[in-house]
Amino acid sequence: MMDHQTLIDQITKEVMKKLTGNTGGTENRSAVSEAAPASAGAVKPEQVSAGGGGGVQVLIPSDIAKYIDHTLLKPDATLEQIERLCKEAVEYHFYSVCVNSNWVPECAKRLRGTDVKVCAVVGFPLGAMDSRSKSFEARHAIEQGAQEIDMVINVGALKSGDLKTVEEDIRWVRRACRPGITLKVILETALLTDDEKVTACYIAKKAEADFVKTSTGFSSGGATVKDIALMRRTVGPKMGIKAAGGVRSFEDAKAMIEAGATRIGASSGIAIVTGKTSASSY
Amino acid sequence: MMDHQTLIDQITKEVMKKLTGNTGGTENRSAVSEAAPASAGAVKPEQVSAGGGGGVQVLIPSDIAKYIDHTLLKPDATLEQIERLCKEAVEYHFYSVCVNSNWVPECAKRLRGTDVKVCAVVGFPLGAMDSRSKSFEARHAIEQGAQEIDMVINVGALKSGDLKTVEEDIRWVRRACRPGITLKVILETALLTDDEKVTACYIAKKAEADFVKTSTGFSSGGATVKDIALMRRTVGPKMGIKAAGGVRSFEDAKAMIEAGATRIGASSGIAIVTGKTSASSY
Repeated sequence: MMDHQTLIDQITKEVMKKLTGNTGGTENRSAVSEAAPASAGAVKPEQVSAGGGGGVQVLIPSDIAKYIDHTLLKPDATLEQIERLCKEAVEYHFYSVCVNSNWVPECAKRLRGTDVKVCAVVGFPLGAMDSRSKSFEARHAIEQGAQEIDMVINVGALKSGDLKTVEEDIRWVRRACRPGITLKVILETALLTDDEKVTACYIAKKAEADFVKTSTGFSSGGATVKDIALMRRTVGPKMGIKAAGGVRSFEDAKAMIEAGATRIGASSGIAIVTGKTSASSY
Repeated sequence: MMDHQTLIDQITKEVMKKLTGNTGGTENRSAVSEAAPASAGAVKPEQVSAGGGGGVQVLIPSDIAKYIDHTLLKPDATLEQIERLCKEAVEYHFYSVCVNSNWVPECAKRLRGTDVKVCAVVGFPLGAMDSRSKSFEARHAIEQGAQEIDMVINVGALKSGDLKTVEEDIRWVRRACRPGITLKVILETALLTDDEKVTACYIAKKAEADFVKTSTGFSSGGATVKDIALMRRTVGPKMGIKAAGGVRSFEDAKAMIEAGATRIGASSGIAIVTGKTSASSY
């Protein structure tokens, strides 16, 4: 089943190369996108056409799925929905499934042997849980099979000017992450001033996080192109940046990647990769 | 300072008794309200008048403050706001302050030697954190000085019909609570059918929680009189019930208590006890 799908993908890529006259290195870019930021405009060169029959067609790059953390974080998500999330992630080759920590064992079991990772959120979505509990939650999620941890910063400490607490909080979680585990730090940009966003980026970088991430999807706003650009200018070219919250279409995702995002958190992953707005979304 | 306030309260109570002709046992009722449900209409007999000068006056029972968990749970709450919350709780003799777990040490320090307890939320507000992490967060909060724990149930497991997981989740947190620690279980009623509310009440009671609580204040709806009445019918006369989410005035609080609530979670505690809608609220 898996080999079948890989074969189809590779043939599709080759055909698209011939059709669009693009010979650029897909594999290379794909690898970069997983480990480090894509350069601006990286999505453009290679594209496959998608979209429902008739009407305007949307051009989708064949590797955009590997930018996506396929996300289901609502509190009333059922086992059936989590199962479907995993199945879709395998089918569309998303980078990971992003779930609340109590779903980690279920997802790890279902995704074993596939190219899809398990990403667990920690201290989510308020970030106001104490640091030791965030660290415990992260360590336990990793023990259960999570390979990526998306933690929320201590927004209140940042707002209080207590930057030491903000940094220590991230370090508590960093220490819980074994080598090879990716740590993303959610700033919850909707609650921050631009100055606070910059400060939070510096602190996350200093505390050795792998990514900064815009939003939880549970606050008053999500990712914006302006914030992604600000975060990219602040953290430099190498750190990962995840745009999350309100990214619902290929156009949204493309704009975020062009502004500097290297990962997309979305509950509408299928709509993003197929261009079909009617595709299932959480 | 404290003795001064206690004296004022007792004189006020005596004067009000004479004025309203009520000689019923306030202390007795107050004690009951802390440990077990008040009988319907318990707020009515003894009242003090409040409200801004001129216009309609609202009658406020003198002991309603002891029903209130003075609450500040927004993620961007600052140290200054937490300090004010504690100060107000002492001044108005609220039952507790209800805060996120990272604020527990600060609140415990400020409330030592007062009649105000510290209540920490756990697995909040989604309830989708794994059980061991909820248990760790509760144990740590108690070690730091929390006397009450408000945990959120595993809504997704309930929705999936996995009642064993719902019960075990509560038992994990119950085990983290030393004798004398009050455990409240938040159902997040806005996400549940009436059948699910009843089921959740039974499970919380079976798992030896002290209270069931309606809402986190972060979902699509808060406490309703109808839900409080349903919960009271389900859990019987002895278990505590906390109405939280959208309780903003004395009238709201009174309606909840008459329907069976024995505790009120509110960020508008001062408005509830003074009748002044302009009073500070979080």
